[in-house]
Amino acid sequence: MADKELLARGWAVRKRLWPDSERSGVEVFRALDPEYAEFVVEHAYGGTYGDPALDLRTRSLLTCALLTAAGRARLLNRHLRGALNIGIAPAELVAVFKQTALYAGMPAANDAFKLLKEILDERKPAV
Amino acid sequence: MADKELLARGWAVRKRLWPDSERSGVEVFRALDPEYAEFVVEHAYGGTYGDPALDLRTRSLLTCALLTAAGRARLLNRHLRGALNIGIAPAELVAVFKQTALYAGMPAANDAFKLLKEILDERKPAV
Amino acid sequence: MADKELLARGWAVRKRLWPDSERSGVEVFRALDPEYAEFVVEHAYGGTYGDPALDLRTRSLLTCALLTAAGRARLLNRHLRGALNIGIAPAELVAVFKQTALYAGMPAANDAFKLLKEILDERKPAV
Amino acid sequence: MADKELLARGWAVRKRLWPDSERSGVEVFRALDPEYAEFVVEHAYGGTYGDPALDLRTRSLLTCALLTAAGRARLLNRHLRGALNIGIAPAELVAVFKQTALYAGMPAANDAFKLLKEILDERKPAV
Amino acid sequence: MADKELLARGWAVRKRLWPDSERSGVEVFRALDPEYAEFVVEHAYGGTYGDPALDLRTRSLLTCALLTAAGRARLLNRHLRGALNIGIAPAELVAVFKQTALYAGMPAANDAFKLLKEILDERKPAV
Amino acid sequence: MADKELLARGWAVRKRLWPDSERSGVEVFRALDPEYAEFVVEHAYGGTYGDPALDLRTRSLLTCALLTAAGRARLLNRHLRGALNIGIAPAELVAVFKQTALYAGMPAANDAFKLLKEILDERKPAV
Repeated sequence: MADKELLARGWAVRKRLWPDSERSGVEVFRALDPEYAEFVVEHAYGGTYGDPALDLRTRSLLTCALLTAAGRARLLNRHLRGALNIGIAPAELVAVFKQTALYAGMPAANDAFKLLKEILDERKPAV
Repeated sequence: MADKELLARGWAVRKRLWPDSERSGVEVFRALDPEYAEFVVEHAYGGTYGDPALDLRTRSLLTCALLTAAGRARLLNRHLRGALNIGIAPAELVAVFKQTALYAGMPAANDAFKLLKEILDERKPAV
Repeated sequence: MADKELLARGWAVRKRLWPDSERSGVEVFRALDPEYAEFVVEHAYGGTYGDPALDLRTRSLLTCALLTAAGRARLLNRHLRGALNIGIAPAELVAVFKQTALYAGMPAANDAFKLLKEILDERKPAV
Repeated sequence: MADKELLARGWAVRKRLWPDSERSGVEVFRALDPEYAEFVVEHAYGGTYGDPALDLRTRSLLTCALLTAAGRARLLNRHLRGALNIGIAPAELVAVFKQTALYAGMPAANDAFKLLKEILDERKPAV
Repeated sequence: MADKELLARGWAVRKRLWPDSERSGVEVFRALDPEYAEFVVEHAYGGTYGDPALDLRTRSLLTCALLTAAGRARLLNRHLRGALNIGIAPAELVAVFKQTALYAGMPAANDAFKLLKEILDERKPAV
Repeated sequence: MADKELLARGWAVRKRLWPDSERSGVEVFRALDPEYAEFVVEHAYGGTYGDPALDLRTRSLLTCALLTAAGRARLLNRHLRGALNIGIAPAELVAVFKQTALYAGMPAANDAFKLLKEILDERKPAV
C-alpha cells in the first residue's frame, strides 16, 4: 500500500472521529513542521487506527484510557469528543475511566470525569 | 447487590481469565492482608470487570494497553495470558501494543512484544 | 463492618479535611455515576483514610506527596487545603515537596510550591 | 551549618535506616562519580531526611509511597528494609501500599506487596 | 570550590538562559523557603548546568526533552524560552519533540509543539 | 525521499550505534510483526535519528536521558552501549544521569548508574 493510500485512510478515520474538524487536530504540528503533520495522519491514523486488526470503536476506547492515565487533558478532551461522535455512549466512557482508575489511580479518573461532564453539558440542548 | 454477589462475580471473571490459576494472582495480597485480597476480587473483578457496561474482551484489551504503558511487567505477563485465554488473538495484542506506542512511546511496546513472544513460545507445542 | 458504617466514616473523614465542602469533591463523579461517587467515599475515605493503621495527618502528607509527584494540580490543590485544615503547617508541606523532589524531580516540587503559595495568599487576611 | 556537618548528619541518618550497610547504597554512585556519592549523602540524607521539619518515620513512609508509585523496585526494596529497621510495622507499610493504590493504581501496590512479602520471609527465623 | 562560587556560577547560567528574568524562576521557592531557592540555583544551575562535562546547549536540549516527556507545561514554557535565548533554533526544538515522541508518545510532542508555537507567535514582530 | 532510502538510512544509523548487532534490537518486533520491525527502523532510525536537524551524538544523549527518566532498563542498557560505541565518554553519560535526576528524581539516576557500571565492568579488559 502506497503512502498516499495510508494518508487518505488516515484522513478518512479522522473525518469519522471529528466530522467537522478533522483537520484541526494537526494544526499544531503543521505550523512548525508540515511534513510531521502529514506523518502523524499517515502513520497514527492511517497506519494504526486504520489497521483492521482492531475496530475503530475499540481503538477509541483504548485511546481514551491511555490519555486518561497519562493526564493529557487537551488531547483527552478531543478524543472524548471523537468517541461520542462515533456513537460510544457516555456510560461506556465512564466505564473506561473506572477501569483506568484501577490501573492508574483515582485522580486520573477524577480529571476525566470532569472533562466528560463539561463536554456533555456543552452538547446538551438549551431548553 | 450484596457484597457476596460481587465477590462471586469477581471470582467468576477471574476463572474465565485464568482457568487454572484464578486464585494465584491475589496471593501476594492475601499473605499480608487477607481482607484486601478479598476487596480486590470484589471491587476490581466483581465491580469493575464484571460491570456489563463493557464486555470482558474490551476490558482485557484496555488492561493490556494500560499495563503496557505503565511498564508493569509482572502484571502485564499475567494479563496477556488472560487475554489469550479468553480468545483474543496474538495479532490483536500486537495491535494494542502498536497503538499504545503512539500514546506512551515505543519502549513500552518493545517490552510488551518481548513478553508476548515469550508467552507464545512457551505455549507452542514441542514438535 | 457494614457498608453504611464505612460510608459514614468516609463522610466523617471528608468533613475533617474540608469542613465546609466535604461533598464538593465527589460532584464530578456524582454527575455521571452516583454509585461510583458513593464507592469513592466508602472505599477511599471510609476504608482507606479511615483505617487506623495510619493517622489522618500521615495520610494527608502521603497524599500530598503522591499528587505532587503525579502532577495532578486540581486534586493537589484540594488536598493541600485539606492538609492545612487539619493543622498541618505550611513548613511541613514544603518539607514534603522537597522530599518529593528527590524522588520525582524538581519540576514536581516547583508546581506544588506555586499551588501552596496561591492558597496561602488567598487565605491571608487583608490588612 | 557547614557541608561537613550536613554530610555527617546524612551518614547518621543512613546508619539509622541501614545499621549494617549504610554505605552500600551509594556505591553505585561512588564507582563512577565519588563527588556525586557524597552530594547524595549530604543533600538527600543530611539536608532533606535530616531536616527536623518532618521526623524520620514520616519521611520513611513518604519515600516508600513514592517509590511504590514510581515502580522503582531496587530502591523500594532497600527503603522497605530501612522502614522495618527503624521500627515501622509491616501493617503500616501495607497501609501505605493501599493508600498509594488509590493514587497510582493497584499494580503499584501489587508489586510492593510482593517485595515486602519476600523481605519478611527472608527475615523470618528458621524454625 | 566553595558554595559561593557554585551559587555565582548558577546565577551566571540563569543569566544566559533568561537575560531579563534570571531571578523570576525561583520566586516560587523563595516565597516559602528562601534557603531552598538558593539551593536550587547553587545545585541545579551551578553544580549541574554549570558542570563543563556537557555544554549549555546540550543541557538545554536535554531539559526540553525531559520536560516534554513529563508534561510539565509551566517549566517547559520557561525552558523553551531559555533554549531560544541561547541561540537554539526552533527547528532543533521541533527535532527534540519528535525524538521525544518516539520515547514518550505523540501527546507529549503535541503539547510541546503548541507551547513553542505560542512562544514564537508572541516573539514575532508585529508588521 | 523514498521509503527505501529512509530504511537504508535507518540501518546505517543502527550500524553506527551497534556495529556488531544492528539487527538484534528489532528482533522482538520482527518475531510478531515483520512490517512493524521495518517501520521502526524506517521511521525511528531513518526518519528521526537520521534527520540532520540534530547530530547523532546529541540524539544519543537525549535518548539516554529519556530512557533513564522512564526506567526502561532493557532499552537503556542497549542505548548506553550505543552511546559508548559512537564515542560518548562515560563521564558524559554520568552528566546526563545527574541532569536527569534533577527532572525525574534520583532513583532514575541510581538505576542508570548501576547499568552503566555493569556495562563498563564487562568491557574492561581482564588483566
